[in-house]
Amino acid sequence: MSTHRKKRSSKSGLPPGTPVHIGVQKLNVMSVTGRVFSDSFAHVRTIESTEDLAVLAQEPHKKWVTVQGIHDVPSLQRVADLFGLHPLVVEDIVNTEHRAKIEDYGSYLFIIVKLVHRPEGGDSLAVEQVSVVLGKDFVLCFLEGQDNPFTGLEERWSKEQSRLRLLGCDYLAYAHIDTLIDHYFPLLERLGDDIDEVEEALVKKTDQEDLTRLHYLKKNMLHVRKAAWPLREVLSHLERGDSILIQPSTQAYIRDAYDHVVQIIETTETYREMLGEMMDMYLSSLSNKLNETMKVLTVIATIFIPLTFIVGIYGMNFKVMPELEWPWGYPAIMGFMFSLALGMVWFFRKKKWI
Amino acid sequence: MSTHRKKRSSKSGLPPGTPVHIGVQKLNVMSVTGRVFSDSFAHVRTIESTEDLAVLAQEPHKKWVTVQGIHDVPSLQRVADLFGLHPLVVEDIVNTEHRAKIEDYGSYLFIIVKLVHRPEGGDSLAVEQVSVVLGKDFVLCFLEGQDNPFTGLEERWSKEQSRLRLLGCDYLAYAHIDTLIDHYFPLLERLGDDIDEVEEALVKKTDQEDLTRLHYLKKNMLHVRKAAWPLREVLSHLERGDSILIQPSTQAYIRDAYDHVVQIIETTETYREMLGEMMDMYLSSLSNKLNETMKVLTVIATIFIPLTFIVGIYGMNFKVMPELEWPWGYPAIMGFMFSLALGMVWFFRKKKWI
Amino acid sequence: MSTHRKKRSSKSGLPPGTPVHIGVQKLNVMSVTGRVFSDSFAHVRTIESTEDLAVLAQEPHKKWVTVQGIHDVPSLQRVADLFGLHPLVVEDIVNTEHRAKIEDYGSYLFIIVKLVHRPEGGDSLAVEQVSVVLGKDFVLCFLEGQDNPFTGLEERWSKEQSRLRLLGCDYLAYAHIDTLIDHYFPLLERLGDDIDEVEEALVKKTDQEDLTRLHYLKKNMLHVRKAAWPLREVLSHLERGDSILIQPSTQAYIRDAYDHVVQIIETTETYREMLGEMMDMYLSSLSNKLNETMKVLTVIATIFIPLTFIVGIYGMNFKVMPELEWPWGYPAIMGFMFSLALGMVWFFRKKKWI
Amino acid sequence: MSTHRKKRSSKSGLPPGTPVHIGVQKLNVMSVTGRVFSDSFAHVRTIESTEDLAVLAQEPHKKWVTVQGIHDVPSLQRVADLFGLHPLVVEDIVNTEHRAKIEDYGSYLFIIVKLVHRPEGGDSLAVEQVSVVLGKDFVLCFLEGQDNPFTGLEERWSKEQSRLRLLGCDYLAYAHIDTLIDHYFPLLERLGDDIDEVEEALVKKTDQEDLTRLHYLKKNMLHVRKAAWPLREVLSHLERGDSILIQPSTQAYIRDAYDHVVQIIETTETYREMLGEMMDMYLSSLSNKLNETMKVLTVIATIFIPLTFIVGIYGMNFKVMPELEWPWGYPAIMGFMFSLALGMVWFFRKKKWI
Amino acid sequence: MSTHRKKRSSKSGLPPGTPVHIGVQKLNVMSVTGRVFSDSFAHVRTIESTEDLAVLAQEPHKKWVTVQGIHDVPSLQRVADLFGLHPLVVEDIVNTEHRAKIEDYGSYLFIIVKLVHRPEGGDSLAVEQVSVVLGKDFVLCFLEGQDNPFTGLEERWSKEQSRLRLLGCDYLAYAHIDTLIDHYFPLLERLGDDIDEVEEALVKKTDQEDLTRLHYLKKNMLHVRKAAWPLREVLSHLERGDSILIQPSTQAYIRDAYDHVVQIIETTETYREMLGEMMDMYLSSLSNKLNETMKVLTVIATIFIPLTFIVGIYGMNFKVMPELEWPWGYPAIMGFMFSLALGMVWFFRKKKWI
Repeated sequence: MSTHRKKRSSKSGLPPGTPVHIGVQKLNVMSVTGRVFSDSFAHVRTIESTEDLAVLAQEPHKKWVTVQGIHDVPSLQRVADLFGLHPLVVEDIVNTEHRAKIEDYGSYLFIIVKLVHRPEGGDSLAVEQVSVVLGKDFVLCFLEGQDNPFTGLEERWSKEQSRLRLLGCDYLAYAHIDTLIDHYFPLLERLGDDIDEVEEALVKKTDQEDLTRLHYLKKNMLHVRKAAWPLREVLSHLERGDSILIQPSTQAYIRDAYDHVVQIIETTETYREMLGEMMDMYLSSLSNKLNETMKVLTVIATIFIPLTFIVGIYGMNFKVMPELEWPWGYPAIMGFMFSLALGMVWFFRKKKWI
Repeated sequence: MSTHRKKRSSKSGLPPGTPVHIGVQKLNVMSVTGRVFSDSFAHVRTIESTEDLAVLAQEPHKKWVTVQGIHDVPSLQRVADLFGLHPLVVEDIVNTEHRAKIEDYGSYLFIIVKLVHRPEGGDSLAVEQVSVVLGKDFVLCFLEGQDNPFTGLEERWSKEQSRLRLLGCDYLAYAHIDTLIDHYFPLLERLGDDIDEVEEALVKKTDQEDLTRLHYLKKNMLHVRKAAWPLREVLSHLERGDSILIQPSTQAYIRDAYDHVVQIIETTETYREMLGEMMDMYLSSLSNKLNETMKVLTVIATIFIPLTFIVGIYGMNFKVMPELEWPWGYPAIMGFMFSLALGMVWFFRKKKWI
Repeated sequence: MSTHRKKRSSKSGLPPGTPVHIGVQKLNVMSVTGRVFSDSFAHVRTIESTEDLAVLAQEPHKKWVTVQGIHDVPSLQRVADLFGLHPLVVEDIVNTEHRAKIEDYGSYLFIIVKLVHRPEGGDSLAVEQVSVVLGKDFVLCFLEGQDNPFTGLEERWSKEQSRLRLLGCDYLAYAHIDTLIDHYFPLLERLGDDIDEVEEALVKKTDQEDLTRLHYLKKNMLHVRKAAWPLREVLSHLERGDSILIQPSTQAYIRDAYDHVVQIIETTETYREMLGEMMDMYLSSLSNKLNETMKVLTVIATIFIPLTFIVGIYGMNFKVMPELEWPWGYPAIMGFMFSLALGMVWFFRKKKWI
Repeated sequence: MSTHRKKRSSKSGLPPGTPVHIGVQKLNVMSVTGRVFSDSFAHVRTIESTEDLAVLAQEPHKKWVTVQGIHDVPSLQRVADLFGLHPLVVEDIVNTEHRAKIEDYGSYLFIIVKLVHRPEGGDSLAVEQVSVVLGKDFVLCFLEGQDNPFTGLEERWSKEQSRLRLLGCDYLAYAHIDTLIDHYFPLLERLGDDIDEVEEALVKKTDQEDLTRLHYLKKNMLHVRKAAWPLREVLSHLERGDSILIQPSTQAYIRDAYDHVVQIIETTETYREMLGEMMDMYLSSLSNKLNETMKVLTVIATIFIPLTFIVGIYGMNFKVMPELEWPWGYPAIMGFMFSLALGMVWFFRKKKWI
Repeated sequence: MSTHRKKRSSKSGLPPGTPVHIGVQKLNVMSVTGRVFSDSFAHVRTIESTEDLAVLAQEPHKKWVTVQGIHDVPSLQRVADLFGLHPLVVEDIVNTEHRAKIEDYGSYLFIIVKLVHRPEGGDSLAVEQVSVVLGKDFVLCFLEGQDNPFTGLEERWSKEQSRLRLLGCDYLAYAHIDTLIDHYFPLLERLGDDIDEVEEALVKKTDQEDLTRLHYLKKNMLHVRKAAWPLREVLSHLERGDSILIQPSTQAYIRDAYDHVVQIIETTETYREMLGEMMDMYLSSLSNKLNETMKVLTVIATIFIPLTFIVGIYGMNFKVMPELEWPWGYPAIMGFMFSLALGMVWFFRKKKWI
C-alpha cells in the first residue's frame, strides 16, 4: 500500500475518459461485497472474481454492491462495464479530487459525496470521496479505503421488514447520502466546542498559540464548507425529481436531507463569522496589550529620566558649585525630586494611565 | 428535569425519521392543553391521557392543541399519530436545532419558528423552537418548555367575537407566527440601546471591557440574524398562497407579517454594520492612543537623554578637564542645557507633538 | 406635545391591525387640509371636523387630502374609514418605523416613503415618514408633523393649467414621491462636501476629531442608504405598471424618478466606499506617524545611551584608572564619542531614518 | 464662460420635466453642426439659426446633428422640439450628473454615455456626458463642451464608401458608443502603469507619499467603475434587439462593443483588487518596519541600560567601597561588562533579532 | 521578432472590425499546419502559401488547421477569408487582451480560451490566448507563438482509430479546450505547494520576504481566476447545446470539462481565502512580535532605570550626605537595589510578561 499521493497533473495530456487514479492509495487490494435482496430475502455475497460479479449483475432482484479501494483501475473498469457505466463515470470515481455532484445518465444516476471526518488525535480533517450509482434495480457504492461508514446501514438492511429492503433502490441510495450527511454533525459539534474553547481563552489571555488554533479552525471550516456547499445542489437536484429513478415517496426524505445540508451550511457560515470576529477581537486585544505595555514604560521612563538628570547635575565635578556646599543641599534636592515624582504620578493618574 | 444538552451527534447512525430529542430538556412532564371552538363557543380542556386527546381529535369543530415539553418522544408520537403527521414531522419537532422552515404536506402545513429572547439578567440570548402544524380544522403548537409566549393569544381567543375564533384556523396559525415575530422588536430595541451605550462609551474612552461588550453584541446579532433570515422564506412561502389551507383574506395579514420580518432583518443588518464601524473606530482609537503615549515618551526621552549625557561628561574624573576649573563653568553649562531643552520643546511644538 | 418616543415594543401582544402610534409625537393637534379640483377649478378647504371630511369625500371631483400629525389614532381611523382603507393601512401609517414600501390593495395603492433631511445646525439626520394613498379619484397624504415638504407642490397645483390638475391623480401621487426624492440631492451634496472636507483634512494631519467626523459621516450614509434602497423597489413596482391606477402617460415620469433613485443609491454607495478608503488611509497615516515617532526615539536613544555609558565609565571612582591620569585623556574620549555619534548618524542616514 | 458648477439642488422644487442645466458650463455659445448624407452624397452644414435646423430636419435623407454646449436650455429645447423629443429627454441631456443609460421612446432611442479621460498634467479624472439620440433617419449627439471625441468618426464618415454612410443610422449611433468605449482603454493602460509603478515603489520603500498615490488611484478606479458599470446594461439592452431601430447586421458589432465593456469592467475590478492587496502590503510593511525599529531600540537599550547602571554603582561616593581600592578593580569590571554585553548580543542573535 | 508590447490604445480611433495586433509579437514568421482526415486516413500538410491553404479549404474531408503567430494581420486575414470568418472574428484573434468567450456565428463557433502557465524559473504567470473556430467540417486553431500545447493532441490524432478522427469536428474542438483546461491543474498544484510552503514558514517566523511571496501568490491567483471564470460561461454555453454544431454524444464530454472548470474555480477561491487568512495571520504575528519586543524593552527599562537613578543619587558630590559616611552604606544600598529588582521581576512574572 503506497502512501504516495498521485496528483491530478499526472493525468495531463491523456485523452478525456481515461480513468487514472488520483489521490492516496488507501488499500492494497480492492474488495467487493455484493448484496441481493427483495422484500422477502437478503443475501450477502463476497465477490472474488469478475465472474462472481457477472452472475450477481444478472440477478433479477435488487442488487447492492459495495466496492472498497479504487486504485485498481482495470478491475474497477470491469465492474463498471458489467453495470453499463459511461467511461467518464469511471474516470470520476477514481479521481478523488472531485467536488460533490450528481449526474443524470438517463438509466442511472451518478452521485459523488464527500465524507469529512476528523481522525482520532489529529487537528486536521480527512476528506474521503464516496461515489454512489443508482440504477433501476441496483445501487453501487465506491469507497476509497477500508473504513466503511455504512456498517450501520448494512446492519439495518439485514433486519427483516427494513425500509431499506421494502422501499426501492432510490431509498437505499438516499440512505447512503443521509448517512454521510449525518457524519457532518458530530464534526461540527466538535469544531463548535473548539471554537468556544478558543473564545474563552481569548477573553482571558492573548498568545501566539491561540492564533495558530484560530488559523487551523478557520482552515478546517474552509474544508467543511467546500465539501458541504455542493451537497446542496446535489440534493436540490434530487428533490426536484427530474429523474424517473426517484419515487415520489422518497422525496419527503430527500427534502429532509436537504434541510440537514442547509443546516450544516448555515452552521458552517455562522462558525466562520464567529472565527472572523474572534480574529478581530484577538487583534484588538493585542493592540490593547501593547498600549498597556507602552504606558508602563512611558510612566517609568517619564518619572525617572528627569530625576536621573537632576542627580547627574550634582554629580558633576565643577570646582564652583555653590549648592554642593550648602548643608541642606542634599535633603533639599531629595525633597524637590520627591515632589516632582509625585506631580508626575498625579499627572498620569489624571490622564488615567495608572 | 435534566439540564444536560442532548446533542445532534447522539442521533448518528439511526434510520431517518427516527425521532430523537435533541436539545436541553426544559420540563419534567409533557403537558397538553386542548381547545375546541367555533364562532359561537370556546372550550378549554386539559388533556391528561391519550384517550382525552383522541376524543378531542374527533371533534367536528375547530381544534387548537398546545403541547409543552417535547422531550417525551413516545407521548409526542401518539399526539402526532392522532392528527396523522408524517414521521419526519415528529423528528423535526423534537430536534430543536432546526432553522425556521415551512413544509407543505398537502393536508397540513408544518412550520418551525425560532423564538429569540434575552432572559432577565443575562447578556446572552436564549433561542427556543416553536413548531406549528396547521391542518384543515386544527392548529397544533409545540413548545420546548413551560414558558408560553402565547398567553396573550389565548386571552384574546377566549373573548367573544375574537377574530381568532371567527376567522379560520389559518388566521390562528398566522397569529402564532405574528406573536413570535413581535417578540423580536423589544429584543432589537434593547440591543439598539446597548449599541448606543457602547458607542457613547467608545467616543469617550477606550478599554478592554468595551471590546468584550462589542464582541457579545456582535455575537447576539449573529444569533438574531440566523433566526430571522429563514423566517423571510417561511412568510414569503405563505404569502405566495400555494397552499389551499391559506384563505385569501388571511394573506393581507401574512404580507404585513412579512414586512415586519423584512424590517427585523434590515434592522439587524444595520446594527451589524454599526457594530462593524464601531470596531473600526475602536481600533483607530487604540492606535491614536498609542501614538499619544509614544509621543509623550519620545518627547521626555529626547529632551532628557542628551542632557543626562552632558551632565555625565562633567561627572568624569579626568585629571585634566579645564572646564571644571572655570568659575563660570557650572552656570554656563546649566544655561547651555536650558537652551538645548528650550530648543527641543520648540522643535516638538513645531511638529505639533506637544 | 410630547417628545417622548413611543417604541415598537409598546405594541407587543396586541392583535395585528391594531393601530398604535410608534415614534415621537411631533404635533399637538392633527390638522387636515382638503383640496377638491378638476381641470377647471381648484378649491382648498380646511377640515375642522369629521363631517367636513365626509362631505369632501363625497365630492364627485378629484380630491387631495393632506393630514399633518399622526399620533391621534382615533381621528386618523375616521379619515381612513371615510376613504375605505384597510385596518393594516392605518396601522402602517401610525407606525413610523416602516421602510419605504408600496402595497396594492386593488382599489387603492398605499405608498410609504421616507423623507431624510439634515436639520439646520446639526450633524445627525432626521428621518420622517410620509404615507401616500392613491385612489381612483383621491390622493391622501399623511405627514408626521408640521413641516410640509409639499408647499411647492401645493403652489404649482394652485396655478391654472398645472399638470398636477390636468393629469390624473396618479400624476399627483407621483409628484409627491418625486418631491421627496428631490430632497435627497441637496442632502447628498452636503454630505459630499463634508466628505471632501474631511479627506482634505486627513491628507494634512491625523487626529481623533477627524475619526469622529468620519464615524458620523459613515453613520449618516447608513441612514440615507437604508431609506433609499427600498425606494428602488417602490418605483420599480410602480413602473411595471401592474396597477390599473397608473396611466401609461405617467410611466415615463415614474421611470425618470426611478433613474433618480438609482442615482441616489449609486452616489450613496460611492460615498460609502470613499469613506471606507478614507478610514484605511487614516489608519495607515496613524501607523506612519507611529513609525516616525519611534524612529526619532530610537535615533536619539541609540546615539546617546552608549555615549552616556562611556562617560559613566570615566565617572567611576576606582583608585587605579590610568586613563584618568593621561593629560590627553579628556580630549581623546570626547573625540572618540564624537566619532561614535557621527558614525551612528551616518548609519541612520544610510538606513534612511533621518 | 462660467466655471461655476451648477448643482443638482438648484433644481429642487421645480416640476419634473423642467430642463435645468446642472454641471459646469464649458462653452460660451452653443454650436450646432448638421450632416446630411445618403449612400451617394455627404454634406456638412453649419447651423446658425433655428431655421437652418428646421430645414435640415425636413431633409428626406439621413441626418447627423452634433450639438456642442448644453447650458443654453432654450436653444436646446428648440432642437429637441424639431426632432420631437420628450421633455424628460431634454431634462436628462442638460443634467450632466446622470449615469449611462438607455431609454426606448418607441420612435427613437435615447442613450447617455459617460466619457472618462485624464486631462494632461493632472492626476484626477474628468468625466463628460455624451447624449446620443437615434431616430429612424437621424442621429443627434449632444456634447458638454468644445472637445469633440468624434473627430475621427467625422473623418471616416466623410470618406466615400464609408460604412458609416452605407449602413443605417443605428450603425452611426453604435459608432459613437464604440468611440467612447475605446477611450477607456488608454486610460486603463495609464492607470495600470501607475499601479505597477506604485507597486514597485512599495516593494522597495514605504512612505506617506505612496499612500497618497494609492488613495488617488483607488479614487480614480472608483470613478471609472461608476462610469463603466451602467454601460454594460446599455449595451446588453441594445444587443437584446428589442428596438426596431437596431438592424440585425448591427448586432454583431454591438455584441463586440459589449465584450469590450465587459473587458473594461473586469480590468477595473482586477485593478481594484490589486490596489486593495497593495494597501494590505503597505500596512504590513509599516508593521514590519516598526518591528525593525523597535528591535534596534530594544537591543541598544537592553545592552547599555544595565551597563550604565553598573558604571553608576562605581561612581557612587561611599566612603567604604572595597572594590574601588583593588588595583584590578577597573579592568575586572570592564571585563565583566564586556562579557555581559557579549552575552546579550548572543541572546539577541539566538532570538534572531540581530 | 519584437518584444515590444503593442497596446490596446494603439487602436483608438480606428473603425470597428479593423484587425490590429495587440500584445507581444512572439514569432517572426507565421506558420500554418493543415491536417486533412476522415475515419480512414489522416494527412499532415505544411502550408507554405495562400494557394496551399485554398486547396486545403476545398477538400471534401474534415480539416484541422493550426496557425502559429498572429502578428501578421494580412496573412491571417487571408486565412480567415478562405474559411468565411466575420471581420470581428479576425479582430478578436489578433487582440490578445480578450477574456475567454464563445460566439455563435451560425455556421461556425468562435471560442477564445486563455492558457495560463508558469514559465520555468519564474514566479510570475504567463497568459497566452488560444482561439478555436469550429465549423461544420473544419477546426481552426490560432496560437500566439511557437509553444504548442496541443502536441499530445496531434499525436493521439495521428493514431488509427483515434476518437479525434472517428468522432466529429466538435469533439476535436472540445479536445482543444479540454487540453487547455488540463493545463490549469499542474499550475494550481504548484501554487498550492507554494501556499503550503509559505504557510509553514509563517508559523515559524515572520519576515518581509514571506510578505512579498504572499503578495505574488495573491497576484497569481488573481490572474488564474481572471482566466478561469469566463471559461465557465464558455462551457456552460456549449453544454446547453444551442448550436447545431455540437452533437449530443459530445455533450457528456463537455459536461465533464465544465466540472473540471468548476473544480478549478473552486480551488482558486479556496486558495484565495487561504491566502487572505495567511495575511491576517501574518499581521497578527507581527503584532505579537511587537508586543514581545516591547515587553522585553519595558522589563529591562523598568528594572534598571530606577536603579540607575538610585546609584546616581549616591554619585552626587554634596558636602553633607550622611549615608556616604556610614560603613554599611554601600552594602545596604546594594541590598536595597537587589530587593527592588527582585520585586519588579516578581511583579512582571505575576503579569505574565516574563
